[in-house]
This record gives sequence, structure tokens and C-alpha cells, in this order.
Amino acid sequence: MSVVFGQVEPAVFQAYAFCTAILGLKMLIMSILTGLQRGAKKVFSNPEDVKAGGKVAYNDPDVERVRRAHRNDMENILPYFAISFLYMFTGPNVTVAVYLFRLVTAVRIGHTVFHALVPVAKLRGLCWAIGFFTTIFMAAQILLHFRLAP
Amino acid sequence: MSVVFGQVEPAVFQAYAFCTAILGLKMLIMSILTGLQRGAKKVFSNPEDVKAGGKVAYNDPDVERVRRAHRNDMENILPYFAISFLYMFTGPNVTVAVYLFRLVTAVRIGHTVFHALVPVAKLRGLCWAIGFFTTIFMAAQILLHFRLAP
Amino acid sequence: MSVVFGQVEPAVFQAYAFCTAILGLKMLIMSILTGLQRGAKKVFSNPEDVKAGGKVAYNDPDVERVRRAHRNDMENILPYFAISFLYMFTGPNVTVAVYLFRLVTAVRIGHTVFHALVPVAKLRGLCWAIGFFTTIFMAAQILLHFRLAP
Repeated sequence: MSVVFGQVEPAVFQAYAFCTAILGLKMLIMSILTGLQRGAKKVFSNPEDVKAGGKVAYNDPDVERVRRAHRNDMENILPYFAISFLYMFTGPNVTVAVYLFRLVTAVRIGHTVFHALVPVAKLRGLCWAIGFFTTIFMAAQILLHFRLAP
Repeated sequence: MSVVFGQVEPAVFQAYAFCTAILGLKMLIMSILTGLQRGAKKVFSNPEDVKAGGKVAYNDPDVERVRRAHRNDMENILPYFAISFLYMFTGPNVTVAVYLFRLVTAVRIGHTVFHALVPVAKLRGLCWAIGFFTTIFMAAQILLHFRLAP
Repeated sequence: MSVVFGQVEPAVFQAYAFCTAILGLKMLIMSILTGLQRGAKKVFSNPEDVKAGGKVAYNDPDVERVRRAHRNDMENILPYFAISFLYMFTGPNVTVAVYLFRLVTAVRIGHTVFHALVPVAKLRGLCWAIGFFTTIFMAAQILLHFRLAP
């Protein structure tokens, strides 16, 4: 099999792979959190799932809070996976790239903590904003690096 | 263009590409299923879409069931795309990797069948769990392979 | 680090990276649009976010319209990221690949415009369909290219 499209520093790819696995696991855990809340509140989304004493409902505040955090992950982390992957091919400074990957991983964990576990609106907003603008920075680097030559 | 970050067995990449295309198509088909249910039940999500005799509603059980299955795909398959991609770079046994890709593809199709087409809670749960824990296994392999050297 | 799984024309990868960054940014902007609508309508999703004179609600038509457009992006653009990535490895004609990437980028921006900004059902549907069937075309190319040899 022959060569591909660009060069990535091994240290950058290592950090990308490690952080992406952590963030992927973090997202999967949201399903567990939702399931735990459904069990605790006996609130289910499908009639065939309802346990004794439970009911179908879509407005339980605790269940819906975890689901909002989960959706926020999908809105932010999934585009980030694609953007941070391509950012590796822009020839970033190794240290900057590694620390940005770690930063986004940390603040997305923080976002879940401050949204679904210990609600603190200001810290949740700060975590979201750091991840959001870091992703925008990476996307801007991609646009600059891969813009059409004049 | 010069070299990239690792080595992937052609047979592993072949299986990854094939299975990812199947799962991607499966997700796209959920939009068709939703549209068919909306047409059959005459229930729409935007006022400008409403056909004669129809209405805007967000609580039709058949439409919402397909939408829940679709969201479950987004929660599980989309992180799996990133995690299974990186798993290829951990040097997995070719046979194991190929069969894990096929397994996840099969159980995610099963999940849709047992959620949206022929609701069977136990089989749906089994399909979900097999895909979920296979993805966690792959993520754990990534963490082990790409952990920082001491 | 040694070689990877296939060959991609630099011009194809350049277009892929550029268009993926544009689409990723477009998705991120949906969060801003949602926030603007929440602020304008004083409708929030978490009790701890409610500003003076505001309330928690999940049925504001303007907020929910932006959220539907955002979910439609997740349903369509995120699988497209994976499928268009693998499509590059099928040895596509460079011009075709580059223009398909640009086409999908344009119609997904059009979809948001005609869904969330200037609702026009027919143009929104046309934009959605062009992106949808282009993604299916790419997935079919992957299946053909990576099918198991007999």
C-alpha cells in the first residue's frame, strides 16, 4: 500500500489518538448515566422498556439534563474529531497541538461535570467556550493551510 | 506527499472502509424511515412542511420511535467511527479486527430492526450492548497502545 | 513511522480538508444561532441559565427550528465526514471528487439558510436531497472499491 496525504508528527498523532479515545469513552459513558437516571426515576422512552412502577415520559428533569449534556457532546465533540484530525496535517507546533488536544479533552469532561453532575452554569459555559473556540482555531488553521494556491 | 502516522494492514482497512460505508448508509436510511412515518401519520416538524390533512406534532409515537433509533445511532455509531479508525493503528490481529468491524455493523443493524421495525426490548438491548462494549474494548486498546512512554 | 493504507491525490485531500473545515465551522455556528434565539426569546433549557424575565421552555418555535436544523446537520454531515474521507481512497477522478466536496458544502449551507434563516421548504428539501444522494453515491463507491475479492 502506498503513501498517503501528508505528514504527522508521531507525538501529535499519539496525543490525538489518546485524547480521542478518552473523549469517545466519555461520550459512551453518557449512555450509562442516562440509563442510571432512567432506572432511578423509573422513567423510560419506549413502552416496551417500562419496569414495574415506571412510566413513559420525556420531561423528567434529571433524565433530560443528562440527555442535553449528551447532545451537547454530539454537537461539539463529533465535529471536533474531524477538525482536530485534519489540524494534524497543517504542520502545527508539536507542543501546541498536544496541549490543545489535552485542553479540549479536559474542558469537555468539565462540561459534563458542570452540566449533568454538579450544575454550575458559569463553569459549564467556560468549559464549553474553551472547547468551542479551540475547535474554531483549529478549523481556521486548516482553512489557512489548505486554501487554494493563487 | 510524504508518509503518515502508522501502518494499517490492507485487509483491516478494507473491512473498515466496507463496514463504515454500510453503517453510514444505515444511518442515512433512518432519515427515509422518518420521512415515511411522517407521510403515513401526516405529522410534520415544520409548519411549512404540512401536507393537506396533516399537522405539526412532536409526540407521534411511531415518528418519535424512529427518531429515537436515529439518535441512538448518532450516540453510538459516530463515536465508533473515530474509535474504530484509530483502533486500526494499534496493530490489532487482522482476523480479530475484521470480525469486530463486522460484528458492530451487524448488531447496529439489529438494533434498528429491534427498535424501529419489530420492537423487542431484550434483543435491542443485547445489540446495543455488544456494539457498546466492543467500542469500549477498541478505545481501551487505543489507550494502551498510545499511552505516554514512561 | 511507516506507510498507511492507500493513496490520495493531494488536490483531493486539499479540497476535503478545506470543505470539512467549512462544514465543521458551519455546524459550530448553529450553537451560536441557538444561543442568539434563546437570548432574544428569553427561553432557556436549564433552570440555572434563566436570565431575568426568562423561563425554561422546550417549545419555542424559533429556538426549536434552529435546533432541528442543527440535528439535521448531525444526521447528515457527521456520517458524511466519515464517508467522504473513505471515498478519497477509492481513486476517484480528481475533478469529480473536488466538485462533489464543494457541492455538498454548498447545499448544506443552503439547507441551514432555507431551514433556520429564510424558511423555504422546497429549496431546503432540494439542498437536503442533493447532499443526501451525493453521500449515498460516495458510500456506493466505497462498497464497490472495497468489496471482498471473490
